[in-house]
Amino acid sequence: MSSHHIVREKQEPALIIANGEACSEELLGQLLEWSPFIVVLDNAIYRVLELGIKVDVWLGDFDDPHDFDAILARQQPLEIVNAPDTEKTDLEKGIDFLIERGFPAANIVWATGRRADHAVTNITNMVRYKDQIRLVMFDDYSKIFPLTGTFEKWYAAGTPISLVPIGAVEGIETSGLKYNLKNETLTLGHRTGNSNEAEVDGMVRISAKNGDMLIMECWD
Amino acid sequence: MSSHHIVREKQEPALIIANGEACSEELLGQLLEWSPFIVVLDNAIYRVLELGIKVDVWLGDFDDPHDFDAILARQQPLEIVNAPDTEKTDLEKGIDFLIERGFPAANIVWATGRRADHAVTNITNMVRYKDQIRLVMFDDYSKIFPLTGTFEKWYAAGTPISLVPIGAVEGIETSGLKYNLKNETLTLGHRTGNSNEAEVDGMVRISAKNGDMLIMECWD
Repeated sequence: MSSHHIVREKQEPALIIANGEACSEELLGQLLEWSPFIVVLDNAIYRVLELGIKVDVWLGDFDDPHDFDAILARQQPLEIVNAPDTEKTDLEKGIDFLIERGFPAANIVWATGRRADHAVTNITNMVRYKDQIRLVMFDDYSKIFPLTGTFEKWYAAGTPISLVPIGAVEGIETSGLKYNLKNETLTLGHRTGNSNEAEVDGMVRISAKNGDMLIMECWD
Repeated sequence: MSSHHIVREKQEPALIIANGEACSEELLGQLLEWSPFIVVLDNAIYRVLELGIKVDVWLGDFDDPHDFDAILARQQPLEIVNAPDTEKTDLEKGIDFLIERGFPAANIVWATGRRADHAVTNITNMVRYKDQIRLVMFDDYSKIFPLTGTFEKWYAAGTPISLVPIGAVEGIETSGLKYNLKNETLTLGHRTGNSNEAEVDGMVRISAKNGDMLIMECWD
């Protein structure tokens, strides 16, 4: 192993920077601080290089022409991963790459906003990885993650918490919310658990028997 | 009926202005031209009045304090509809209101962007109204509408068309797309029909046997 490769402990989450709407510099700075390993997707590389961020991996299908030498001149070392699979989105390829490399967790940013098809797909696809890697998606208004097992976290009273079923989710039980659910079913497009909130300062618990659910902490 | 009430033919779609991210002035201008009847949701009224737009209805739960006299001084006539139901989002209340008033169609704007819980819920909830009113949601990157019966429309070659199942959708048949589906199933979060496109200049046809699907025309 050459000297510039550092053996990482992989305790911290990796960070995937996708190619949607940019977030605030403050949020990006925070995520970079938490995540020593950075994967940038496709054409986002140009926006990321403009910001002077150190990147570990640049991954994409590279359908558009790129001057790879010019990019390597600005950023070295940089691992370039060509992922031409058209059945998967760039974000799915990025997540698959991190699973293969053994990362237990990843944060995702710049994956929302702009095109609704990309945003909805990026957000909802997180559920399929829920047993393989811990994913959290961030933007300036939202923190989004899939429910796995029983979710438990301390929240301040009034913190907005939305339960968004991806399809139908059965046997939902909650405690600590203003509107608690007791063995109930939520169905996307028909009945969702939007705009709930922590009732008091204390633990919120959320579980479900069957189905895929996203938990969203959002603010205006 | 007093003299300032105009009997409308209700041929054109109404327009709902929700309280998410504002769109370009160009898009808003186009939508206003198409839609003579304008419904503004809750706190969006302040942003809409700033733009000098003539509004017909202001609808919301009015949880926040408002100076109703000051608003009426800036905009008259203005029908104010107090809709306190906490089980429904403001957008659902606005759609229900238009159904009650007999509108056959409505365009929706400012309903995406910003908070992911609101955006995802606003987008996906459109499917529940598919047999009651024709809804189309617009933002600067997207035109979104539910599939009802067999969808048929002429597109220029290469136009991006995404099929986004809200839950599981079975028996999907398409023609005219680059990647056509033959009696296939799509499931949100697991297998979606993102980033398809019209194969040639000509008709695209999309139908499904079972389930709720959104069609999205999106661009960068």
